[in-house]
Amino acid sequence: MNKKETSAISPRREEDYPEWYQQVVRAAELAENSAVRGCMVIKPWGYGIWENLQRQLDRRIKETGHSNAYFPLFIPLSFLEKEASHVEGFAKECAVVTHHRLEARDGKLVPVGELDEPLIVRPTSETIIGESFSRWVQSYRDLPLLINQWANVVRWEMRTRLFLRTAEFLWQEGHTAHATAEEAVEETFKMLDVYAEVVENVLAMPVIKGEKIPEERFPGAVDTYCIEAMMQDRKALQAGTSHFLGQNFAKASDIKFLSREGTTEYAYTTSWGVSTRLIGGMIMTHADDDGLRIPPKVAPKHIVIIPVIPKPETEAAVLEYAESIAAALRLKSYNGVSIEVVVDKRDIRGGDKSWEWIKKGIPVRLEVGPRDIENKQMVLYRRDKGPRDKAFIGFNDAVEGMSALLDEMQNNYFEQAKAFRDANIRRDIKDFAAFAAYFTPKNTDKPEIHGGFVLGKWSGDAAALEKLNELKVTVRCIPLEQSGTQGVCVVTGTPATKDAIFAKAY
Amino acid sequence: MNKKETSAISPRREEDYPEWYQQVVRAAELAENSAVRGCMVIKPWGYGIWENLQRQLDRRIKETGHSNAYFPLFIPLSFLEKEASHVEGFAKECAVVTHHRLEARDGKLVPVGELDEPLIVRPTSETIIGESFSRWVQSYRDLPLLINQWANVVRWEMRTRLFLRTAEFLWQEGHTAHATAEEAVEETFKMLDVYAEVVENVLAMPVIKGEKIPEERFPGAVDTYCIEAMMQDRKALQAGTSHFLGQNFAKASDIKFLSREGTTEYAYTTSWGVSTRLIGGMIMTHADDDGLRIPPKVAPKHIVIIPVIPKPETEAAVLEYAESIAAALRLKSYNGVSIEVVVDKRDIRGGDKSWEWIKKGIPVRLEVGPRDIENKQMVLYRRDKGPRDKAFIGFNDAVEGMSALLDEMQNNYFEQAKAFRDANIRRDIKDFAAFAAYFTPKNTDKPEIHGGFVLGKWSGDAAALEKLNELKVTVRCIPLEQSGTQGVCVVTGTPATKDAIFAKAY
Repeated sequence: MNKKETSAISPRREEDYPEWYQQVVRAAELAENSAVRGCMVIKPWGYGIWENLQRQLDRRIKETGHSNAYFPLFIPLSFLEKEASHVEGFAKECAVVTHHRLEARDGKLVPVGELDEPLIVRPTSETIIGESFSRWVQSYRDLPLLINQWANVVRWEMRTRLFLRTAEFLWQEGHTAHATAEEAVEETFKMLDVYAEVVENVLAMPVIKGEKIPEERFPGAVDTYCIEAMMQDRKALQAGTSHFLGQNFAKASDIKFLSREGTTEYAYTTSWGVSTRLIGGMIMTHADDDGLRIPPKVAPKHIVIIPVIPKPETEAAVLEYAESIAAALRLKSYNGVSIEVVVDKRDIRGGDKSWEWIKKGIPVRLEVGPRDIENKQMVLYRRDKGPRDKAFIGFNDAVEGMSALLDEMQNNYFEQAKAFRDANIRRDIKDFAAFAAYFTPKNTDKPEIHGGFVLGKWSGDAAALEKLNELKVTVRCIPLEQSGTQGVCVVTGTPATKDAIFAKAY
Repeated sequence: MNKKETSAISPRREEDYPEWYQQVVRAAELAENSAVRGCMVIKPWGYGIWENLQRQLDRRIKETGHSNAYFPLFIPLSFLEKEASHVEGFAKECAVVTHHRLEARDGKLVPVGELDEPLIVRPTSETIIGESFSRWVQSYRDLPLLINQWANVVRWEMRTRLFLRTAEFLWQEGHTAHATAEEAVEETFKMLDVYAEVVENVLAMPVIKGEKIPEERFPGAVDTYCIEAMMQDRKALQAGTSHFLGQNFAKASDIKFLSREGTTEYAYTTSWGVSTRLIGGMIMTHADDDGLRIPPKVAPKHIVIIPVIPKPETEAAVLEYAESIAAALRLKSYNGVSIEVVVDKRDIRGGDKSWEWIKKGIPVRLEVGPRDIENKQMVLYRRDKGPRDKAFIGFNDAVEGMSALLDEMQNNYFEQAKAFRDANIRRDIKDFAAFAAYFTPKNTDKPEIHGGFVLGKWSGDAAALEKLNELKVTVRCIPLEQSGTQGVCVVTGTPATKDAIFAKAY
């Protein structure tokens, strides 16, 4: 790592983006594949990011009036069948529990004790939570019912990728029931707004809020809304969804209530979720060719202090000075929590140590050596600048200014991601030839190098969808923010009024 | 609820203890049975208690140097088989995933896509975490490895009871690896101490720390240590366990390291866990015939303010006064968090409202009416006193003194539980006739009314165990605190030195 032109992660993004992603995840010790097909192990550094995101989202979920609860991991097969499009959506990829015991037969353990009814490991919990809701909701006085669950879910995906698509993942799923469609729709948008706010402000990922086209709705939903982010390969990542379920699941689960007027009505329900997939999105938004860059608001540690000890006799003084900086910083807070500092005293080469922390994406590195003690200073490296871009900073300035510095980095990450995204949204493509050319890789060896997002008109007809499929492009969403202008569909050329975001996607 | 001699929960503890427990759980809206055999739904009030316990235990787990991580829900059958006594312990009660898809056949959904190797839904994670540890541990520099996981686990119990024994439950499981047996043993005791401290100080449940007899060890452990609590039916509840696993699981999972001396050694591992079972223990320790009593440190809400509105024209003023009290209290903190206050404005009878909160076990009720506004006071009811035991308290005294009052209640709950337990430990029983009489129900209609704990000598021989089994009594533990005296086994009359705690147990 001595030359300016080398990078800590190999390959670089432009060389092989999918492999670069795997290497960033590995080098930052975020997660790894397990012995169980498609299931990942989330390592402490990755789980620390999830805990920080979870804490900040959980606070917002509670502030908007929701309570956490916990429902069974298993769903009886008959429950899944209650909603026709729901079962169709999840039957193809679910883990099925069929037995409840193991017995040795011919020296081999085999499943015995077959269940009368197979159980599905929850891929999502509308049907099992609906069963409770049908008992909890009796009168209009019980509404709205605003529940959230933090849980693991399983979808038997065939092609998996750490964080982005795994057979088991962690998420929160909100489930609410309301007396009127209007209130349920309002809730759906409220939680979409919460997601957009937390993803932009905490994960520093700019998103576009929009509605899914009918073909992309959640199985059983009346309307699905989403937030879409752009990754550095200019593909889209669906970062969160919020569904207005109408009375579909209320009818399936028999969630009825006595109205103020004395009539019996089905409730209107919503559901909404974000998952550990967001960590994949964060990596693909902020990491660079030197590895991860973690937005300070979710960093498990904000600062590493690296003692530089040229001679053994200086060790005690340098370590003492390093600890005094750490102690002073820990008394300061950033974003509502104490600043988290680690003093890395490991007996390994200083260069290796620095690069390890660069690859882990820690926001700030502070180096301190014998001379810094005299000068009451330290060397500051920021992960939002180049790896050798250093600055001397005084003890007091570092301690007093750290919170503002972290906030500046948080904003920089967001602004950089937003500038990248905005530079890669084409709004000028008006016909399909240009559209197809934009999305077609110039180099067949590198299919990941293609266009970006197109903001264009969309007619919504079946022929248009077919042409998109051929290009492997999808309508990511109909943005909530619409121009209201008339135009022609960018795919079919027929008159169209709706603006849509088109992209290849994860 | 107008007569002094009635109670809010029916039956009372002395009438039918198991049914009383169910009714307390129901009346407090803590949890309910689900449509899935043995799996419970944890309702918001119950989950709020779990979240508070989790936060306080998680802090201690991190302060003792552990990091959280997450491992797969599924365990390949072959992994479970790696440790012989482990598989024997869990094979009889596990959920087995055998298929990964559902297909409609003859109009019926059936499991298809059979897995090459069945997967077990984790009953505990030693074997799947061991697989990661075998990769993470290479050198003595990688040790100690100190990991914790918050997760759901499944054990296919045949007889279930809300919180105390459910097919699925929530827990944390710590897993650590060390270079020496001494360090691993030290870790085992350290976490036992953490458990004892958190259960006593946060849940206000006095516990006895001890070692399990060989027959009661965790499957695969070299030594199992536990904390045992006494419930109000004088049965024991194992409230947490910490296992020294020796090299058993390291050998099964191939966790080896290069020692400082250059030799290859197997690591020594530990595991330790507590679960949602603790909520069952908390209920059975503190609830009374009027319902739940929640120790303030885990109460989802500390205080309810009940506005008393005799005439409609007083409503606005009373509500305003109630909100001003709430606002002032919320600025105060208790046990490191803001005091949580709810103003119950629901339009239902005041008496019903009060009893609802009594049954939910909220620590403090404050009633405010029109006259209290003039006097700048309120009526205070504490859940650790009788339901009609009221006191007038001034606005400022209430606000300034609330944290101390909550702490006093927390201590009272602990002291009451400790006095009850200590009064029900017999230390004077020296022979088996007296021992058997103590544990034999006086009334066969009420098998739950029996003795309590016996602290006596234990020889540990097989004949003694058989006699205990007949009485349905178990050795709960060999307390860490030993008298060191000589005596005779309370079961067999043979010479014995070890003190043991004997009890019927959950």
